Amino acid sequence: MMNPTVVTKEPNKESDHLADMFPHLTSENFPPMGLETSEFRKAAHRIIDWTIDYHESLKCGRLPIPAVKPGFMKERLPNAGPAQKESWETVFGDVENVVLDGALHWLSSNYFGYFPTGISYPSMLGDMLCTSTANIGFSWASSPSCTELETVMMDWLAKALNLPDFFLHNGRGPGGGVIQGSASEATLITMLAARNKVTQEERSRDPKQSIHEITARMVAYASKYSHSSVERASKVALVNIRLLDVDENISLRGSILRNAIEEDRRQGKIPMFVCATIGTTACCAYDNILELGSICQNEKIWLHVDAAYAGSALLCPEYRYIAQGLQSITSFNFNPHKWMMVNFDCSVLWVRNSLDIINSLNVNPVYLQHKDQTKAIDYRHWQISLGRRLRSIKLWFVMRMIGLEGLQHHIRKGVSQAKYFELLVRSDGRFEVVFPVTLGLVCFRLLSPDSTLEKTNELNSKLCEEIQRDRRYVLTPSSVNDVYFLRFSGGMNFCDVESIKGCWEHMREKADLVLHHCGDLKPKINSKV
Amino acid sequence: MMNPTVVTKEPNKESDHLADMFPHLTSENFPPMGLETSEFRKAAHRIIDWTIDYHESLKCGRLPIPAVKPGFMKERLPNAGPAQKESWETVFGDVENVVLDGALHWLSSNYFGYFPTGISYPSMLGDMLCTSTANIGFSWASSPSCTELETVMMDWLAKALNLPDFFLHNGRGPGGGVIQGSASEATLITMLAARNKVTQEERSRDPKQSIHEITARMVAYASKYSHSSVERASKVALVNIRLLDVDENISLRGSILRNAIEEDRRQGKIPMFVCATIGTTACCAYDNILELGSICQNEKIWLHVDAAYAGSALLCPEYRYIAQGLQSITSFNFNPHKWMMVNFDCSVLWVRNSLDIINSLNVNPVYLQHKDQTKAIDYRHWQISLGRRLRSIKLWFVMRMIGLEGLQHHIRKGVSQAKYFELLVRSDGRFEVVFPVTLGLVCFRLLSPDSTLEKTNELNSKLCEEIQRDRRYVLTPSSVNDVYFLRFSGGMNFCDVESIKGCWEHMREKADLVLHHCGDLKPKINSKV
Repeated sequence: MMNPTVVTKEPNKESDHLADMFPHLTSENFPPMGLETSEFRKAAHRIIDWTIDYHESLKCGRLPIPAVKPGFMKERLPNAGPAQKESWETVFGDVENVVLDGALHWLSSNYFGYFPTGISYPSMLGDMLCTSTANIGFSWASSPSCTELETVMMDWLAKALNLPDFFLHNGRGPGGGVIQGSASEATLITMLAARNKVTQEERSRDPKQSIHEITARMVAYASKYSHSSVERASKVALVNIRLLDVDENISLRGSILRNAIEEDRRQGKIPMFVCATIGTTACCAYDNILELGSICQNEKIWLHVDAAYAGSALLCPEYRYIAQGLQSITSFNFNPHKWMMVNFDCSVLWVRNSLDIINSLNVNPVYLQHKDQTKAIDYRHWQISLGRRLRSIKLWFVMRMIGLEGLQHHIRKGVSQAKYFELLVRSDGRFEVVFPVTLGLVCFRLLSPDSTLEKTNELNSKLCEEIQRDRRYVLTPSSVNDVYFLRFSGGMNFCDVESIKGCWEHMREKADLVLHHCGDLKPKINSKV
Repeated sequence: MMNPTVVTKEPNKESDHLADMFPHLTSENFPPMGLETSEFRKAAHRIIDWTIDYHESLKCGRLPIPAVKPGFMKERLPNAGPAQKESWETVFGDVENVVLDGALHWLSSNYFGYFPTGISYPSMLGDMLCTSTANIGFSWASSPSCTELETVMMDWLAKALNLPDFFLHNGRGPGGGVIQGSASEATLITMLAARNKVTQEERSRDPKQSIHEITARMVAYASKYSHSSVERASKVALVNIRLLDVDENISLRGSILRNAIEEDRRQGKIPMFVCATIGTTACCAYDNILELGSICQNEKIWLHVDAAYAGSALLCPEYRYIAQGLQSITSFNFNPHKWMMVNFDCSVLWVRNSLDIINSLNVNPVYLQHKDQTKAIDYRHWQISLGRRLRSIKLWFVMRMIGLEGLQHHIRKGVSQAKYFELLVRSDGRFEVVFPVTLGLVCFRLLSPDSTLEKTNELNSKLCEEIQRDRRYVLTPSSVNDVYFLRFSGGMNFCDVESIKGCWEHMREKADLVLHHCGDLKPKINSKV
């Protein structure tokens, strides 16, 4: 009772007493959500309208590549946060200059870089609900609907892609699906599961072997053009990885794998994991699942399929030929957050036997146990992290509000964008399409027929630099078999005929420029279309 | 030219030609964002208003615990997604019955479970911008502002917590911070970095040793009450872990660690990593960083501090005593997504030397290289995953729109909630406060003085079951030294005096109930306040 003015207020004696003891408990100076509700309502509505305007600007000339240099942001922000709150208007007013001015605009109609990133209005609506409900679903009990919506959505999605039945939660087996944050996590998780499984088997045969002795003998395999995350997973798991040669279609074939396995078995090693890629990042090549699958089944080796990019195309029956042989695989992963109109992050993983994952990661302290744990899925045993967002609601919204037909249209549109760009490239004899265009990716380069591979690479590297410098179009380079080339990646939402034509005209202009500066290289004019 | 009716439209000859060749390229049947802009605007505005109403309902009697049983959702949803799109109204109309009816409402004013989950209106606004801009910042070039806002925010946050200068990007050393998805990832990443560092050192001493031989000799240490993610990290990293005993305050002390290290060194093992916890999940205990730090410095062992929950309290000078000795640690992690009003996921990690992390995870393929890579941070080398969202914008909005003083208020309010609940518990002699209340957690149990530990545990387990069954209040159980107890966790935004009082009355009622059914246990009435 330090403050006599408070004590005198008779009717509220108890609360005054509390206010003295716990001033922060009853203070109303700070709104519990950090902003008054009325301010939030106004600000959030403003962001919705702003979002629509921002998206419009990406179709209307906003340059997708920023002009900033490393370190730029330190100049634009103070070196410590404020003690006192700043107004919403002040903060929001800085978004353009601080964030957008230095951003690569992935949603630009002129973006053809890397692979597409998923986005759609239904997905954004789902994400808003995910944020505003703040459900943290690490176990069934911590949010039953977070867990169960995910299991149902994984089944919906498996059916939409026509994946084998053994991947369904509702199926007869112990299979099922889970949302991970990224394909890298999925690759790591499955490699760890394979490692654990093999260790258990080896130790049941010979209990004297240590885990490290067994692991030292393990070998994992992937194409030399598999994603860098496979190599990273092997570094984390301490499993030797062999990045195998590919055929002329940049495809890992059965014969190469078989030879490698035999060689390793002869040396007493334990082949235990193969990561096959459906749609490599470098050039969208496909490993031969049919051949690899039959070997892995015979050899009892875990076959994981990384279809991070191309998996979305399995929504369309006409593209399912790229992934024949899924009946014999052990796990399958793809990223709806790439090409299925779902915002990052949403990478989906199915496993034939979920116990393989759970056994390799399970740790079960009392404070996470609950009475339904034997009857329900606890996804915390299916991933590295404990906490998890309600990501399945994005999938639910997208699959219902866009529908399978709408999603198929999105895939077909992305492929058409690539096919159309391919046609344009083939119309100019100075250019070459480097690999067959099967989905949304066109690999192409400028030719310099009088010159060496090294000179041609240099020419294309210069072309790439010029495109970057210009800032109007986003394309990223790649290299396969020492051939450096450019990648045109279709599939972004706002891309249209005009932006593809514009991109192609831009390529031709920049080609003129770099060829002009390479005295030894004559442009060959040969317009076919 | 399959369709003559199209060919006849002279003015648009080229586009008709295109429409024939690529019908999906030009079709306007499907909006590019999956929903017409006008529908999105309407729906998104509706979600904002709905969010405010939902949050209001959580203060006004909506039961936080759902009544559902495992498998409930299969009954409420079809077993496959629709071919044709459904309307926004239809889908949104299902949110209540399908998602919310089966959700644990973490934002309820009656939620005192697990630890708090972070949320605030500024954070939600930031998340909306993160979603609508869809920047994927795996490298500097893939989104310069995603990378740079993160580095600046990590410096702001380090200063707000008064962390050592060597953690600043702007500092003299090679230290810096990064946002991870969860504390589990941070623990794994740092253990892997320590593993790699020790391996390099051992091999430079004796190149004949294999990685597996060296790893087999490694030992990591943590308190037996450290988070389960430490054990999981050791399983993933194949590093032996020793979960050490604690003192009477459930604190890992220097003497215990020193003994363990000496014992292991004598056996030829390599002590290489200690995870010290500031605020354990079970009972919010604190390992002794001062003692552990000086040992780890002398022994050249990586000392990681997991302050997932309690780290936010370091925003307030008066709570910094819980983490004395940070000058000697190697890495520090806490979760703004727990108690700093930032929505999940946002777990922040600082390391003394970022090269330790980078060297252990770096794989660098051509398609991810860019011209600024030696001058700028590429956060993809700092984490397991490749892709990353613009999570720093949540931190930016929260730190500016709430301000340090507002965040301090939020922490102090959470502590006051616990202190007030503690006072109530101490007013009833039938109950006991099991551990000192230092931050937002109260560990308490019903006493049964005439009975064994086993019976008392059973009684409290029954109490916990009754609370669960009733559905009005969320509290989770825990166990330390075989003593089972309940946890009251303060710190959620809508918690107020009334909800705490209500929770306490509820505890007393349920205590009456379970004591009544335990004939051998007499309630001891002793009202102190």
